[in-house]
Amino acid sequence: MKRVAVIGVGQTPFGEHWNKSIKHLALEAGIKAIEDAKIEGKDIEALYIGNMSGMFTSQEHLGALAADIAGLNPIPSTRCEAACASGAVAFKQAWLSIASGQYDIVMAAGAEKMTDIHGNNALNALMGAGDQEWEGSIGLTFTGLYALIARRHMHEFGTTREQLAMVSVNNHRNALKNEYAQFRYEITIEDVLNSPIISDPLHLLDCSPITDGAAAVILASEDAVKKLRIENPIWILGIGHATAPLALHDRKSLTRFDSTIIAARKAYSQADIKPEDIDYAEVHDCFSINEILAIEDLGFCRKGEGGKFVENNGINDIVKINSTGGLKAIGHPVGATGIRQICDIVKLLRNSGKYGLTQNVGGSGATCVVTIFGKE
Amino acid sequence: MKRVAVIGVGQTPFGEHWNKSIKHLALEAGIKAIEDAKIEGKDIEALYIGNMSGMFTSQEHLGALAADIAGLNPIPSTRCEAACASGAVAFKQAWLSIASGQYDIVMAAGAEKMTDIHGNNALNALMGAGDQEWEGSIGLTFTGLYALIARRHMHEFGTTREQLAMVSVNNHRNALKNEYAQFRYEITIEDVLNSPIISDPLHLLDCSPITDGAAAVILASEDAVKKLRIENPIWILGIGHATAPLALHDRKSLTRFDSTIIAARKAYSQADIKPEDIDYAEVHDCFSINEILAIEDLGFCRKGEGGKFVENNGINDIVKINSTGGLKAIGHPVGATGIRQICDIVKLLRNSGKYGLTQNVGGSGATCVVTIFGKE
Repeated sequence: MKRVAVIGVGQTPFGEHWNKSIKHLALEAGIKAIEDAKIEGKDIEALYIGNMSGMFTSQEHLGALAADIAGLNPIPSTRCEAACASGAVAFKQAWLSIASGQYDIVMAAGAEKMTDIHGNNALNALMGAGDQEWEGSIGLTFTGLYALIARRHMHEFGTTREQLAMVSVNNHRNALKNEYAQFRYEITIEDVLNSPIISDPLHLLDCSPITDGAAAVILASEDAVKKLRIENPIWILGIGHATAPLALHDRKSLTRFDSTIIAARKAYSQADIKPEDIDYAEVHDCFSINEILAIEDLGFCRKGEGGKFVENNGINDIVKINSTGGLKAIGHPVGATGIRQICDIVKLLRNSGKYGLTQNVGGSGATCVVTIFGKE
Repeated sequence: MKRVAVIGVGQTPFGEHWNKSIKHLALEAGIKAIEDAKIEGKDIEALYIGNMSGMFTSQEHLGALAADIAGLNPIPSTRCEAACASGAVAFKQAWLSIASGQYDIVMAAGAEKMTDIHGNNALNALMGAGDQEWEGSIGLTFTGLYALIARRHMHEFGTTREQLAMVSVNNHRNALKNEYAQFRYEITIEDVLNSPIISDPLHLLDCSPITDGAAAVILASEDAVKKLRIENPIWILGIGHATAPLALHDRKSLTRFDSTIIAARKAYSQADIKPEDIDYAEVHDCFSINEILAIEDLGFCRKGEGGKFVENNGINDIVKINSTGGLKAIGHPVGATGIRQICDIVKLLRNSGKYGLTQNVGGSGATCVVTIFGKE
């Protein structure tokens, strides 16, 4: 398999974009990525786009649509979907398409326009990520699913309500410097605990928001990196992608995501590095409990100690977690998040550190993609 | 790039499956493909599934769900979507994943459950394949879009209403022997002309139906074909995938699909064969006019002569078109059709002939995937 690097990144501001459609958001992110890579649109040979649900916009066929509005016809363009991990699976297909020798320069993008429908309908659309027959049909929402996980984690390991709140506090503080973040203000543990309960034990400020946004990256083969004389390629060292049962009742445990554990094992093995080698990790904190699960399942601490890990303002000797604000503060346009995480890791590694990791989760852990990046 | 073959195929009957959900349809097709390949589920390393729209079932995340119900967790599983070409793009990703050297045995499937919602809502969901801002917003349906194409083809080339009808007559006759077909009865030109007008000049019997169904194939690397001692591998010789503007008003011509022309050129070139070498072609007759366009754009006759080509009971010296019944008579569960076409070509080539071709179209031609198969 051929080596592949990320050579350009771009994203829209994340937030409520009442005056832009999903195709215009995707276009804006794509142009920024092309400019960042210092290439031209005509250099792109194929396009992959992550997008979760046509239920938000009634628009499917987003692959062809993105190529259309970007003036990139007739290049092949494919939408990939794995719920909130749609961005990462699109990125994986883009990587495989170059690793196979089929293409040299490919764009991977992610986009979601979530505010075009009423909030209740948005929650229904999001439930398409779970098992509609077993979970949706009995009225479970995604906050409900993660609330069950949080309550069990508190029961098994003594994780406290304050530790959950600390995840949101840390991520809001980290987002202060992120010009693309939806929420750029600090919050306190008291703010989280005093915010309305959505699904006990999770409060409003434990939850990532409904967001519009898009992100895009340019991938290139080693040959193309040399030919284009790219100065700061960030190499893809390993990608792990794993699935687990959709319905929580079919899992052996509520307090770990086997999909994360297996995907991480594969990614670390491909990259031939260990958790302690990672400088930056962008993990999937769709709800506060999920950042704690991620920290444990990715091997940054032992199972059950994730709550303690996030205390002390998130400062530790091992790895900087969600140092750009996470899904909680940056916002979570579901199909775009996996690509946004990659944009942030690439920008961080260009400045400092050696290895970065992204963890993008679909549903309540039925899909997980872990990707490891490095400078060499 | 490594060589890849199809070693197993399976599908459900196509029709109205009131007692089965989309996941049970996908499971049934997958088991048949596994049995046909004489492998076991645990041999499968990755899964790709084509599915057009969560609007039909409110269920997204079909990749993980298919792996879940099949007991294939934790293998990576990805849903791919390109409207009615979702099956073919899923197949293309499965091919790339083996060609890259990442996997040796992969399943590609397609599934759609279209009867879970009211017919009008199904038409709205299908319009997600077009440009919702420019076309859906003014009330255009897919029959309307193809009616515009049909009228223009009649105007430019003198194609007759009877020639359009002949497409449906041929496909219904071809489906008589297809045990999986939704409609297994003959119709006449008069039947078509006397059926209700849906969108002038297209009548009810020019249109493929609303259908539930699933199909699956097993792909294998050359190493795996040898190791498993597969007796009748059908090799993938070329895949072309191209896009065009979604909205008809952005095309240079209404009477050709540039996506088909470009995808076919690439597939023929990769396979190093010509249109006249093809023994069987499964083409995308979602509406009768589209089979005529396909025959022309794939190079089986000159532009404008497709109407004449389908006369004479579809018998010609060049290629057998839709010899199992086409979308019109087999049915068109949109995400499954591209894989069903491949199942049929593989079964045909196992019996006779040397080369087969599938053409799977998304929307009104914004996506086209052309794949060429052969025995060596």
